[in-house]
Amino acid sequence: MSKPYTRLDKNNAAVLLVDHQAGLLSLVRDIDPDKFKNNVLALADCAKYFELPTILTTSFEQGPNGPLVPELKEMFPDSPYIARPGQINAWDNEEFVKAVKATGKKQLIIAGVVTEVCVAFPALSALEEDFDVFIVTDASGTFNAITRDAAWDRMSAAGAQLMSWFGLACELHRDWRNDIEGLGNLFSNHIPDYRNLINSYTTFQPEK
Amino acid sequence: MSKPYTRLDKNNAAVLLVDHQAGLLSLVRDIDPDKFKNNVLALADCAKYFELPTILTTSFEQGPNGPLVPELKEMFPDSPYIARPGQINAWDNEEFVKAVKATGKKQLIIAGVVTEVCVAFPALSALEEDFDVFIVTDASGTFNAITRDAAWDRMSAAGAQLMSWFGLACELHRDWRNDIEGLGNLFSNHIPDYRNLINSYTTFQPEK
Amino acid sequence: MSKPYTRLDKNNAAVLLVDHQAGLLSLVRDIDPDKFKNNVLALADCAKYFELPTILTTSFEQGPNGPLVPELKEMFPDSPYIARPGQINAWDNEEFVKAVKATGKKQLIIAGVVTEVCVAFPALSALEEDFDVFIVTDASGTFNAITRDAAWDRMSAAGAQLMSWFGLACELHRDWRNDIEGLGNLFSNHIPDYRNLINSYTTFQPEK
Amino acid sequence: MSKPYTRLDKNNAAVLLVDHQAGLLSLVRDIDPDKFKNNVLALADCAKYFELPTILTTSFEQGPNGPLVPELKEMFPDSPYIARPGQINAWDNEEFVKAVKATGKKQLIIAGVVTEVCVAFPALSALEEDFDVFIVTDASGTFNAITRDAAWDRMSAAGAQLMSWFGLACELHRDWRNDIEGLGNLFSNHIPDYRNLINSYTTFQPEK
Amino acid sequence: MSKPYTRLDKNNAAVLLVDHQAGLLSLVRDIDPDKFKNNVLALADCAKYFELPTILTTSFEQGPNGPLVPELKEMFPDSPYIARPGQINAWDNEEFVKAVKATGKKQLIIAGVVTEVCVAFPALSALEEDFDVFIVTDASGTFNAITRDAAWDRMSAAGAQLMSWFGLACELHRDWRNDIEGLGNLFSNHIPDYRNLINSYTTFQPEK
Amino acid sequence: MSKPYTRLDKNNAAVLLVDHQAGLLSLVRDIDPDKFKNNVLALADCAKYFELPTILTTSFEQGPNGPLVPELKEMFPDSPYIARPGQINAWDNEEFVKAVKATGKKQLIIAGVVTEVCVAFPALSALEEDFDVFIVTDASGTFNAITRDAAWDRMSAAGAQLMSWFGLACELHRDWRNDIEGLGNLFSNHIPDYRNLINSYTTFQPEK
Amino acid sequence: MSKPYTRLDKNNAAVLLVDHQAGLLSLVRDIDPDKFKNNVLALADCAKYFELPTILTTSFEQGPNGPLVPELKEMFPDSPYIARPGQINAWDNEEFVKAVKATGKKQLIIAGVVTEVCVAFPALSALEEDFDVFIVTDASGTFNAITRDAAWDRMSAAGAQLMSWFGLACELHRDWRNDIEGLGNLFSNHIPDYRNLINSYTTFQPEK
Amino acid sequence: MSKPYTRLDKNNAAVLLVDHQAGLLSLVRDIDPDKFKNNVLALADCAKYFELPTILTTSFEQGPNGPLVPELKEMFPDSPYIARPGQINAWDNEEFVKAVKATGKKQLIIAGVVTEVCVAFPALSALEEDFDVFIVTDASGTFNAITRDAAWDRMSAAGAQLMSWFGLACELHRDWRNDIEGLGNLFSNHIPDYRNLINSYTTFQPEK
Repeated sequence: MSKPYTRLDKNNAAVLLVDHQAGLLSLVRDIDPDKFKNNVLALADCAKYFELPTILTTSFEQGPNGPLVPELKEMFPDSPYIARPGQINAWDNEEFVKAVKATGKKQLIIAGVVTEVCVAFPALSALEEDFDVFIVTDASGTFNAITRDAAWDRMSAAGAQLMSWFGLACELHRDWRNDIEGLGNLFSNHIPDYRNLINSYTTFQPEK
Repeated sequence: MSKPYTRLDKNNAAVLLVDHQAGLLSLVRDIDPDKFKNNVLALADCAKYFELPTILTTSFEQGPNGPLVPELKEMFPDSPYIARPGQINAWDNEEFVKAVKATGKKQLIIAGVVTEVCVAFPALSALEEDFDVFIVTDASGTFNAITRDAAWDRMSAAGAQLMSWFGLACELHRDWRNDIEGLGNLFSNHIPDYRNLINSYTTFQPEK
Repeated sequence: MSKPYTRLDKNNAAVLLVDHQAGLLSLVRDIDPDKFKNNVLALADCAKYFELPTILTTSFEQGPNGPLVPELKEMFPDSPYIARPGQINAWDNEEFVKAVKATGKKQLIIAGVVTEVCVAFPALSALEEDFDVFIVTDASGTFNAITRDAAWDRMSAAGAQLMSWFGLACELHRDWRNDIEGLGNLFSNHIPDYRNLINSYTTFQPEK
Repeated sequence: MSKPYTRLDKNNAAVLLVDHQAGLLSLVRDIDPDKFKNNVLALADCAKYFELPTILTTSFEQGPNGPLVPELKEMFPDSPYIARPGQINAWDNEEFVKAVKATGKKQLIIAGVVTEVCVAFPALSALEEDFDVFIVTDASGTFNAITRDAAWDRMSAAGAQLMSWFGLACELHRDWRNDIEGLGNLFSNHIPDYRNLINSYTTFQPEK
Repeated sequence: MSKPYTRLDKNNAAVLLVDHQAGLLSLVRDIDPDKFKNNVLALADCAKYFELPTILTTSFEQGPNGPLVPELKEMFPDSPYIARPGQINAWDNEEFVKAVKATGKKQLIIAGVVTEVCVAFPALSALEEDFDVFIVTDASGTFNAITRDAAWDRMSAAGAQLMSWFGLACELHRDWRNDIEGLGNLFSNHIPDYRNLINSYTTFQPEK
Repeated sequence: MSKPYTRLDKNNAAVLLVDHQAGLLSLVRDIDPDKFKNNVLALADCAKYFELPTILTTSFEQGPNGPLVPELKEMFPDSPYIARPGQINAWDNEEFVKAVKATGKKQLIIAGVVTEVCVAFPALSALEEDFDVFIVTDASGTFNAITRDAAWDRMSAAGAQLMSWFGLACELHRDWRNDIEGLGNLFSNHIPDYRNLINSYTTFQPEK
Repeated sequence: MSKPYTRLDKNNAAVLLVDHQAGLLSLVRDIDPDKFKNNVLALADCAKYFELPTILTTSFEQGPNGPLVPELKEMFPDSPYIARPGQINAWDNEEFVKAVKATGKKQLIIAGVVTEVCVAFPALSALEEDFDVFIVTDASGTFNAITRDAAWDRMSAAGAQLMSWFGLACELHRDWRNDIEGLGNLFSNHIPDYRNLINSYTTFQPEK
Repeated sequence: MSKPYTRLDKNNAAVLLVDHQAGLLSLVRDIDPDKFKNNVLALADCAKYFELPTILTTSFEQGPNGPLVPELKEMFPDSPYIARPGQINAWDNEEFVKAVKATGKKQLIIAGVVTEVCVAFPALSALEEDFDVFIVTDASGTFNAITRDAAWDRMSAAGAQLMSWFGLACELHRDWRNDIEGLGNLFSNHIPDYRNLINSYTTFQPEK
């Protein structure tokens, strides 16, 4: 019995960056900090590159959770920025849900800290309202592999699709020829191995 | 096709702490003992903090399985305490099932030792009787990752939701403003990184 | 929507030990050899203890796959022993299927080497014929964690329940009081930590 | 409720080798390079041995992704070879889909680099068009275990069956007696432990 | 050729707790946070229990490194507390060295954050001045296992002895009978497994 | 500059089994319990097989540390058995040291629980008195890899030789022909892979 | 017997960056690529910040080893750049050794790819000529942990000191007050956790 | 105090391949079988390529240890082949020692199975007779990491240098220009990543 391929479409997708805050990031221990920073910025670069409406939100940022990492603020100066005064589930914040629905997009790309709360709660809420939900697993972080795997199971059982930032970029881009340099830069900036491939490649064929 | 978000509701949830006994705890080797003790006590603190009806039960505690860890007894002096004389599946003990149903709650939060028996069996029994079941994965322990992952698969396939104690606390609390200090203390007492955040935070703004 | 708890019943279960052969065992590298030997013998002890009809089978044992480990032969001298001349899926061997169906049991407990072939193939075949299938994950072995996890996914997606030998013993035994000493011995012989519990326990209360 | 066993049938299966390119292979870090090379060549040997129609394709091979590894080209000189000029999802390339459908086979065996893109995208597309899809997990590679496990979840949730090259060979071969030497060579060439079994076996019985 | 056993002597040992600060602790990722907090507090309990002169010091605590964790301050209200204004190597701070030498002890027990700086630097300086140096490896933390193992090698090559807090307690205590309850409490408070042993032990022989 | 090879000599070696007690064994988490039990019994079998004077000792066995595992008592009914009333370092117990020296052996083979205390302390004491010390690393256990590696470093720096039970058996046996069957049985009983080799070997050449 | 603390001195140290080439970097699999890129650039930033004479060298860069990563070239436009035409041990290249000795520095800080060749060989050669050698372990990479640990052992046994880039920066800087902002920026740019500490710190005390 | 760099010299080195036998190889579980087979054959290729006198030996090969892997026999038809009838330490076999000394080489490159016996024993014996000993760690295998690390410590403490096959090849080759193609082939055949580098390299510059 065939199952429809709910495929990311850059014209129908929005990005929700939930609670990547300076304090909360110290709780993330299921992924290496250098890799996690790179993955989150790679997702942000994807959102800008594919011009996806992006919504930033924080949880109780005046408290120990701390401020949103400045890089994200700087990258999305004009995006809706919802500093939730208390709602732990972003979907409980009306302003946030309004911003999401205002994008008019049916596909929600969600990443955040920590995975089982700041990502899973809005994901489960959005799935309940029939959105297509795509979790960027490697741009989300939590305490350890046990809490991560449990959160993945809960979201996947509810119909969320588990992705990575690289898979997301490829599914949105569809075809290299749409913009070889653009996609190449995105990969070069966030995949050291790919940067090395490009450096070797350009070195061996200087004349091109 | 949207899937309802069966969301933990502190007014409709009960906690079942199954067989955290001094002897059985020596069988737990899929999680570090310091972390496991902290997670189990964190779950117990959640049950008290959110005033969730809590049921304690042990399996054949006069034998080598040993006594319930004293901390749990001391924290829930008035909770139903069912020392099962032999039933390995707590749900086979009438007194236990009666106590569960007496809570009038539809959402059962279950943790125990070992995962594939003392947690899975009552979970599968409760699911059969149409309860909503939430497994606190990081406050449950077993021999190794193989037995854990197999137990997770069996419970998830039957409809149990796999949670962590932190995710549980957040889903029950809903909004920081319900009690900032209370939730803050809960996290400070059981998440060393969060305690450090609070210490730095209060140090840097002594006057608040 | 409640899901029936298909619970192991010692009066309705049979054990299929598939291809635990001296040669094939050298391919098993997803579990420590001392632990794997102990788990397989523990499962065998369970089959004898609960008097479950047990079927032994080997794959092309005259070749490099080698003989069935002698311990299993010695433990089940009267069990059907099908040395499959060539069928890789035991369920393709009529004699084997006949022996399975002759047990009259609806619940098939399967363990073998390697997991994605000697366990998965008969499991998927049995599921197709509406048997309830229980995989003893820690008494099955394969090349590495990647092949194991893939096999688990394939079998679980088809409806097999993933168990461990300890979970199996507990679900079959139901109640300690059915035979405290019997179950105690089973655990003492195959769980060093439980043996230590019993030794300490009996030492501290010599008179009982 | 029984579930049909969609079993690999060598008369109804085709192999899709997607983007095993010299450059992309440097991105693969979720499996050891010696093991990965061996697994990919083992899958290729299976395709040849079982005479399965095999389709080779590359993604933008003139760029840093680099050429298809020469071993695969040499093994399948007459197979359709689609150097996709830009389509990231091979199923978006008409020539590729035409070649797939030209095989007349309903069962598609897919392996590639990286798992969440070059394998998952065509797999999800093929599932949508009611093909039976078998993922050769250990002949596919990606950045790390997080991206791999997420890709597995996405494909399995859509109905793909997760296999390993060894499981694939066994399911296709069905019975040792179809060709003992052939299957033995396949294993000997790609499973060092099996080669050792055969060497010991033949040494101990030189006369056979 | 025999080598003298430089054995910890509670009458000749001092404890140096270097830079266990709220901010720096977020850099520690080579040990689980719950275990690390427990180990550091266990070492502090040892220092108090064996009445070892203890010196607390912090590095630039007004900055992001943050305050010393309050628990240590509260446990050693009367101990020398040197808030180093800038010296990264505590041994470069005269006040610190003076305090160390004022203890009159030849054996220095050092733990701190991070291992390759705050522990290694004063350790190497102290070794140069012919002190006997004991590193409490599991009460020291750093970025990852690579930096830890390198720091261990550097300190061990210079003559430091690598210990753990439990080994330290045992070597200082020499004989259970010096204070059975005292050592038992120390272990019970910081080794969950030992606490379970004691709980089972006392339960099984209530009358003793 | 050549370094003498201090080689185990069965005529000059004694075995010290220190504190393998039922309670203390629950602290051992740096090695799998099934493997550890097998390794300790393998070492004991070596001691009996090579007829090495063997000394058993326990630490405060009336307390929670618990009794010596019965298997060791049963295997060495006539060996000196020193139940140390309190000395944590066995070498502080005169009776123990007297028993060691009474063996007249210069090479001391030490294993125990936990590694950094019950093994390291007597090892360092013995090295100080110019004994040749051989640590059976895989028949010694402790809390985790950090405490183990630190203990190894401390003992190796003092001149102890780090061995495994299999290396010990081989160095003592020198030549297969001294007793092929004896050594074969020792390996078969404690190395499942070797048992499989023997089973295949004997099966393929029944006549020998 | 005291051992001198050979302490890094920014006035007496030079940095040798050996073979961080685009092709060779694809061989590095003992450390995560994002972390490794960050560590190498952190070391380069240290060399610039502390104004240490820095020598760049490559091995047969016209071949598959590929070009030096462009970031290092751009950071040290005026540093000696020795493209070794064939010498695998940089110390076999006269121009290289001349450049090293021309720095007049006795302390050589070495990092490179791969660890057991491009780092170990010049390190062992330099030690032979009585240089003090400091290996930046986390800015050096190789095939896997086995080859790394073996290389560490070989270099450490010869007297090299095993460091990390962070330890190096701290030992060179000596005192925060020499340049709080400078060291703070270095850490902020290369330690995501430290960047988060600074962001939280500055947020909570905006007025400073 | 400088330490001489005892550097491998192809004119002064011999290779000892000890007990890589079909049966014993099933005991090797501290390294992946595909990688181990590749590493052993890579070492053998080095021995042939650098024309190093090579000695093959087996331990009791008529028994379950099994025959030497055929690849090594075929590669060194004219090398001394000592089938030790019983000596577990190859250095106890006169014929073996005679063959070693007959090479006239002072540098002995040793690899074998298992590490703590078949490699360590002859290594320690050779060190005692003032040979320079180089252990090829990744072409030697044993039960697990504990036994390996212990063996490494024992050999390193006695003065053996711990190498890898790649480090060995580089130290022997000294300069690419001695034979670019030869060394390139050696790497291409045994390092899949290097083969990919060469394939990409030659593809991008076909005319060279």
